Amino acid sequence: MIPPDAKLVFNGVIFDVYQWQQVMFDGSFQTFERLKRPDTMLIIAVQDDKILICEDEQPHRGVKLALLGGRADEGETPLESAKRELLEESGMVAQDWELFKTYVPIAKMEWNIHYFIARNISKIAEPDLDTGGERITLRSVTFDEFIELATQPDFGAGEFAADILRMKIDGTISEFRERLFRS
Amino acid sequence: MIPPDAKLVFNGVIFDVYQWQQVMFDGSFQTFERLKRPDTMLIIAVQDDKILICEDEQPHRGVKLALLGGRADEGETPLESAKRELLEESGMVAQDWELFKTYVPIAKMEWNIHYFIARNISKIAEPDLDTGGERITLRSVTFDEFIELATQPDFGAGEFAADILRMKIDGTISEFRERLFRS
Repeated sequence: MIPPDAKLVFNGVIFDVYQWQQVMFDGSFQTFERLKRPDTMLIIAVQDDKILICEDEQPHRGVKLALLGGRADEGETPLESAKRELLEESGMVAQDWELFKTYVPIAKMEWNIHYFIARNISKIAEPDLDTGGERITLRSVTFDEFIELATQPDFGAGEFAADILRMKIDGTISEFRERLFRS
Repeated sequence: MIPPDAKLVFNGVIFDVYQWQQVMFDGSFQTFERLKRPDTMLIIAVQDDKILICEDEQPHRGVKLALLGGRADEGETPLESAKRELLEESGMVAQDWELFKTYVPIAKMEWNIHYFIARNISKIAEPDLDTGGERITLRSVTFDEFIELATQPDFGAGEFAADILRMKIDGTISEFRERLFRS
């Protein structure tokens, strides 16, 4: 989406800004601008008959319920990143990983949100949190509670909520449940 | 969301980047970064028993179906901006404007998408397009076609699609129809 000859004009803490000259329909040129940020991993962590989520508190905002997950580090694949985030935030590892879906929330930004399903999880360590930057409390919810949460505005990306709502409408939500809890 | 003492560190064509020092839970500081971009207006333009949308072609991507609308200019209110966009793209004015809802798609960006309902529209001029930058062809769709389109991934913001899907589930979609077509 960002052409290979685009110029990096700002290199930020999270966001990089690229610009390039785009040929228009009438042959003129216009400066186009797009952003790039590290991908985000979100983990649907299945433990027995529950889904593990968290109360996530950050210094600049209050507490909110969220999926476990976080930002990719430089050079990580999405799966490596998801495994690291699960371990850091919960001290857990999963035997069975599956990519549920990748969303691209914003047209003008190279940014993917990868939703992973993590099955057969077990605790092998204590959480290793960036204690200055976040306070995370683990919580377990049932599938129905998860669906209720996931379709709330502001829980996650709108397109994930829309996909869950489409499953409710077309009757495939029970297939989604089976997919999460299969062993 | 961006604190008043944040520093503008990059001033782009569309995106501005701000940074500030955020006190963390342990008393340390971390550089936080947020973006700002002009608000987007999207117009549900009601003409008789149809909704006016467009085929929008831009030089860097193909044709896509979209609501009329666009980006706010400096100093415009959302309503002023919506009126200007409707006139530029369709040559039309509306007698009756109502803000349907404002969405904030991304937590790390000051960016609102305002959905307006425009009723009693009539043509007073030819469209005044930026002919280098876009080719717009007007199309009329029925309410059912609009709902079908609006709930497709990639038609618009995910949260708007999610709201339409929630209306389908809770049975308020007919109220939405009445709201659009009331005179």
